[in-house]
Amino acid sequence: MNLNHIVDLSEFPITELNKIIDLGYKIKKDYNFYFKSMENNILATLFFEPSTRTMLSFETAMIRLGGNNIGFDNPSKTSISKGESFTDTIKTISAYSDLMVIRHSLEGAAKLASYFSDIPVINAGDGGHLHPTQTLTDLLTIYIETKSLNNLVIGFCGDLKNGRTVHSLIKSLSLYKNNKFIFISTDTLKIPKYIRRFLDQNNCSYTETVSMDEYMNELDILYMTRIQKERFESKVIYNQEKDKYILTTEKISNSKKSLKILHPLPRTNEIDINVDLNEKAVYFKQLKYGVYARMALIVLLMHDNITIPISKAFELENKICINPKCISQVEKSAKKLFKKDKFDKNILNCDYCDYLIY
Amino acid sequence: MNLNHIVDLSEFPITELNKIIDLGYKIKKDYNFYFKSMENNILATLFFEPSTRTMLSFETAMIRLGGNNIGFDNPSKTSISKGESFTDTIKTISAYSDLMVIRHSLEGAAKLASYFSDIPVINAGDGGHLHPTQTLTDLLTIYIETKSLNNLVIGFCGDLKNGRTVHSLIKSLSLYKNNKFIFISTDTLKIPKYIRRFLDQNNCSYTETVSMDEYMNELDILYMTRIQKERFESKVIYNQEKDKYILTTEKISNSKKSLKILHPLPRTNEIDINVDLNEKAVYFKQLKYGVYARMALIVLLMHDNITIPISKAFELENKICINPKCISQVEKSAKKLFKKDKFDKNILNCDYCDYLIY
Amino acid sequence: MNLNHIVDLSEFPITELNKIIDLGYKIKKDYNFYFKSMENNILATLFFEPSTRTMLSFETAMIRLGGNNIGFDNPSKTSISKGESFTDTIKTISAYSDLMVIRHSLEGAAKLASYFSDIPVINAGDGGHLHPTQTLTDLLTIYIETKSLNNLVIGFCGDLKNGRTVHSLIKSLSLYKNNKFIFISTDTLKIPKYIRRFLDQNNCSYTETVSMDEYMNELDILYMTRIQKERFESKVIYNQEKDKYILTTEKISNSKKSLKILHPLPRTNEIDINVDLNEKAVYFKQLKYGVYARMALIVLLMHDNITIPISKAFELENKICINPKCISQVEKSAKKLFKKDKFDKNILNCDYCDYLIY
Repeated sequence: MNLNHIVDLSEFPITELNKIIDLGYKIKKDYNFYFKSMENNILATLFFEPSTRTMLSFETAMIRLGGNNIGFDNPSKTSISKGESFTDTIKTISAYSDLMVIRHSLEGAAKLASYFSDIPVINAGDGGHLHPTQTLTDLLTIYIETKSLNNLVIGFCGDLKNGRTVHSLIKSLSLYKNNKFIFISTDTLKIPKYIRRFLDQNNCSYTETVSMDEYMNELDILYMTRIQKERFESKVIYNQEKDKYILTTEKISNSKKSLKILHPLPRTNEIDINVDLNEKAVYFKQLKYGVYARMALIVLLMHDNITIPISKAFELENKICINPKCISQVEKSAKKLFKKDKFDKNILNCDYCDYLIY
Repeated sequence: MNLNHIVDLSEFPITELNKIIDLGYKIKKDYNFYFKSMENNILATLFFEPSTRTMLSFETAMIRLGGNNIGFDNPSKTSISKGESFTDTIKTISAYSDLMVIRHSLEGAAKLASYFSDIPVINAGDGGHLHPTQTLTDLLTIYIETKSLNNLVIGFCGDLKNGRTVHSLIKSLSLYKNNKFIFISTDTLKIPKYIRRFLDQNNCSYTETVSMDEYMNELDILYMTRIQKERFESKVIYNQEKDKYILTTEKISNSKKSLKILHPLPRTNEIDINVDLNEKAVYFKQLKYGVYARMALIVLLMHDNITIPISKAFELENKICINPKCISQVEKSAKKLFKKDKFDKNILNCDYCDYLIY
Repeated sequence: MNLNHIVDLSEFPITELNKIIDLGYKIKKDYNFYFKSMENNILATLFFEPSTRTMLSFETAMIRLGGNNIGFDNPSKTSISKGESFTDTIKTISAYSDLMVIRHSLEGAAKLASYFSDIPVINAGDGGHLHPTQTLTDLLTIYIETKSLNNLVIGFCGDLKNGRTVHSLIKSLSLYKNNKFIFISTDTLKIPKYIRRFLDQNNCSYTETVSMDEYMNELDILYMTRIQKERFESKVIYNQEKDKYILTTEKISNSKKSLKILHPLPRTNEIDINVDLNEKAVYFKQLKYGVYARMALIVLLMHDNITIPISKAFELENKICINPKCISQVEKSAKKLFKKDKFDKNILNCDYCDYLIY
């Protein structure tokens, strides 16, 4: 059978995306309908890198569906410390459970797992690469709070360079009609060239600014991000950047009444806690919506009611991925797989981490 | 709605205390009646400081009620390590679960959490400050084993200075009629002044002694305690104190046939293992009763069948708590809250850790 | 009542062994029949030494039966770090749960636990001593894959000296009719004398060889083992031994079409990953069968449908076990128990770790 995995949303057709959003919205209104739908089923949460929030969100989703959880959140405690390969661990888990969620510090880990697993794989973050369920959470939040995914002015503020959730959300929102993006960042952390190229090719309008105030009164959505220490090589640059954008009650005083403020969380200090009390702040509601999005995803995957296209990859013995953070660098069992770049057919991408290979 | 939290038993009226004891006793006789009452509900166990016994006791209670558990027992694995505040973690968990249990090394942590949580909070120990569910366990054990909470002679032996469970149990027992307390300790670890003052004000009779034998034949209850290494600043004093009181079969030879020996556990060597075989030893039964007490508490909280008075606190911008172990010292989101001291209206108490502020 | 524990299979009668195999086989065909049979029951997984694979296998088994799990996999997080004895921890857990699984780095830990537990104890590995549920998994795998446990030629390859699962499996297979053993190992890691003596006494035929190829074409079963780094005192010897036997597709080219290759897992490099694709490789199926074996064991223990003989042990105050890895060396609460050696009545065995005492 053609097994479905949620590794990357970039090739997700809008029809399938809407299936998840619609079911998530339905569950939000009344999830008792789905209570017991996963009874006697097991979700395995494989957190090779700890992320309490994401793990608890998935565990909660599975429990709310009547299912159960097994897993680990500390690689040093797994058989890997006995020299087992990543792919053998994946095969082991797929012998025990019905569905698996993977979080890993190396890019492409979930993709590699999908080639060895006998059960559906959900990517819960592979290094700085992808985190599709965060994007589904964000889309569902916008849909629940604004009743639409079209005709929106969406501001993104903070680290737009390293923020994987930002890139993924932009790509997905560009599938919908007439959305306009405002990118608020310093020059150091501005949105990458490939995203701008992507938006140009899809005729999406966007504006870049260093000012948090310039377009505030136009925004329907403000997506704040955390400056992630762990994504910086240099401590100096981190310290120089970290306090550049801090959202306060004053800053949103002249914004639209209907503005909704999102944040993937956790936050450090980029949003003043007094903003929490403002009805425009929906980032804590967003956590609940994240559970609904994951419940929808689990139901659709387990009932095989979703079809996900798989990018055509081919093996090249004489090529290797040069991304030092790619899983293929450390996993012997990973075949050397590549695919054609979406923009330039003469360039290759690593099938696991999407790194450009010339 | 007026949300109920179990942070501190000190202002608990006897009526509400009896509700928990009565239901615990009912559950002990037949808990199958409550089996499934928490179905599809989630208890979150937030152990910022590990305590396997307490965590497993709560998890067991929830499972016996048909419910489920999520949580963590290792702060280094939580988002806190990404710089998230304690209160944001609380808000996150309250978006996922229906009830939360908190264990923390800082005093006042559960109280602070109760101000930010949308779901009931149960204090499972905040540093050396409070541990209400241990006290409920002790009360239920006494009630089950002696069929009464009145007219008892109760001996407390060991560390009466630092033992928070001892102080809390004494206060609760003083609400019942005609109980007499025997405090057995060295001068270094004797019962604190504020407890003696409390007993005097409530006209409760008590006696202090350094001898384990002097009143042994009068006791209905002997509550043994562990000399807790972690509560001592000086290793010298710990070593000098730790073996002062060791209960043996000989020591209870001339005690009442109906004597019941309790211990909060874990024990080190303060009770000889041969005493375990004696029917007077009920400290392992006490573990089972602890599950019943927690089951009763969960049922009452979730069905909103209990009413807990909240001490009136007020904000004072110019005051700060001077207790170095108070959560308010590290949590920026904690307002500077205080309340009037119960004995001296001119003295303030920190609302979180009850420390005296002059 | 006479409580049943699964600590050691060595004295297990074939009748009881078959009960587990038969039920495991029945469950494999349709375990929905047993779904909910453990509802509201709690399995405690006490992993004093981490072993993700074994823990997840037991948790999965309990969940598939409709039951629940509590436990720990990190001793530093348990009350033991507060100075609690192992046996007090066992008593605590038996107050909370219905069945317990113990993994410990010290030999005899599960046996000691069985003397203090009020609920059935399953040994999930005590140091290099015993691991009965792995043996049950292996037997069930052989039965499912060959439809028999008799008249087989079984090859064992790798570390036959330290591999506890190998010794236990050989003993159990010797209970069945007309099985022949081929021991493939270097001289350093050859099968121990006591196993050869055991086979001689039971008139079982066996052959020893250093060649992986010599008997390959005769084998019905090939049981591969990992050279376990943790079992070697000397790194030099480990490195010299670790790559001696590596199974490849070529090596099994002239083997019987019906050959089945087993491995307890995890593997390091002793089986080339290309062998995984060969239908003769059943070591990943073996993981699923391990769940069925554990489900069968849990059902039989909880429904008290199995009778396990207990070796007669006696206390000798003046004797002590001299095995430095024996639990009796560190646990004060462990009585000095011994039993007569099965081969030489003048020799004693430690009741916990079976070490020979002269």
